[in-house]
Amino acid sequence: MDPNLSPKELRQLIRSRQWTTPTSGAAPGYVQANLVMLPEEAAFHFLLFCVRNPKPCPILDVLEPGAVEPAIARGADIRTDVPRYRVFEKGELKTEVEDVSDYFDDGMVSFLLGCSFSFENAMLAAGLPIRNMEEGKNVSMYKTSIQCRSAGPFSAPLVVTMRPMTPVQAVRAVQVTTRFHLTHGAPVHLGAPEEIGIKDIHRPDFGDPVTIRPGEVQVFWACGVTSQLAATSVPLYRVITHAPGHMFVSDLKDEDLTLM
Amino acid sequence: MDPNLSPKELRQLIRSRQWTTPTSGAAPGYVQANLVMLPEEAAFHFLLFCVRNPKPCPILDVLEPGAVEPAIARGADIRTDVPRYRVFEKGELKTEVEDVSDYFDDGMVSFLLGCSFSFENAMLAAGLPIRNMEEGKNVSMYKTSIQCRSAGPFSAPLVVTMRPMTPVQAVRAVQVTTRFHLTHGAPVHLGAPEEIGIKDIHRPDFGDPVTIRPGEVQVFWACGVTSQLAATSVPLYRVITHAPGHMFVSDLKDEDLTLM
Repeated sequence: MDPNLSPKELRQLIRSRQWTTPTSGAAPGYVQANLVMLPEEAAFHFLLFCVRNPKPCPILDVLEPGAVEPAIARGADIRTDVPRYRVFEKGELKTEVEDVSDYFDDGMVSFLLGCSFSFENAMLAAGLPIRNMEEGKNVSMYKTSIQCRSAGPFSAPLVVTMRPMTPVQAVRAVQVTTRFHLTHGAPVHLGAPEEIGIKDIHRPDFGDPVTIRPGEVQVFWACGVTSQLAATSVPLYRVITHAPGHMFVSDLKDEDLTLM
Repeated sequence: MDPNLSPKELRQLIRSRQWTTPTSGAAPGYVQANLVMLPEEAAFHFLLFCVRNPKPCPILDVLEPGAVEPAIARGADIRTDVPRYRVFEKGELKTEVEDVSDYFDDGMVSFLLGCSFSFENAMLAAGLPIRNMEEGKNVSMYKTSIQCRSAGPFSAPLVVTMRPMTPVQAVRAVQVTTRFHLTHGAPVHLGAPEEIGIKDIHRPDFGDPVTIRPGEVQVFWACGVTSQLAATSVPLYRVITHAPGHMFVSDLKDEDLTLM
């Protein structure tokens, strides 16, 4: 992987299908985003769902109906510049594809939502551990018993990621991630997984289990997968999302997302 | 004015028309909000306008179409609990009333947006001057040459408030207001009013002129009036807003709006 690849160059590789793999670690320092596309008729209530649940669904950009070029990625085409997409119909996964030009129409609205890669870079820079990276795994994700605020027909349980660390590191992690309120921000919970409905910390609902060492506290952050559960909680004729780990890479820098 | 009045008690006085005056200084410590109501057909694009312009239009609450009880003020009725409303039709001011029950219908969506009262309290607590308060005037407001990001048919110039202070106080004001990102947050400009299209600082477009002392820098914050200009920039059959200074008083405390 070329560490000097710009977001624009990376998107060109993706568009020409020379890059079809996950985007973790690509174009470091630039903001990657979750993608949800759905019909205009449902757009107000889905936008309202995101506004009401800013921790799991922080809004980076929302395109006009039928528009394909995000304001945060000039020259990009949202139909081709994600390495892998999922297409849902009536709430059911129908197919995974590398280009959604045949599935996108003028009545669809695209939402780009913050992802945890931005604050993970800041955590690494602060010397904090990210266990799943150390172990070459996907982050552990759990459905919780915390219900998001619903909006119109959209509802979902809050999904969280978990990163284990020492108590002192947890304090530092709160400080470091608080600044990144557009990429999930501060943790939503510390320790005591049973209090948020997690029955077995060693069996995540998504991603992989990671090692939890004696004396470590489990730190939980809101997770963008929540937005996908919400979007597919309604039997819309079509919803398109990125495939897990295959994110949209924007021209924003991580630091652009801190409070200003 | 009873300084111990709770937001709920204040809203009851307003609803029974025992309180019909501006809300500045009422129920101190509690968040007051700008109100915009408009038809459901325009709600997606107006919400998008707010999302795209978070500094002038920070979203505190958006109600479902036809709903009248905000999540941030349990038991309230948005049709009666503002002391004075403005009713616009086709973009033109039609009337000012103390109750909009006769103008509100099941197809209208209510938006509550942050106002500067919250960060002004924090500035006062930090010993910073608020000149218009010292002089018993309304804050000076100016239309700028900065265009907001449009959304669908909605557009507006950025409106700003101005508070003069010493350079050292300006630095402190940036620190203090940055935490309040849901009530306009950090300043958008410092000094040099001509750079943002303000021709005569002594002739504000709204509110009153205030004294600017030698050596003071003019500090500019985004202003909620922007949302009213945007909402009335389109000839919708009806738009309702609060009348200037007559805000909606919520159950949120100022501190609830800081980064979390």
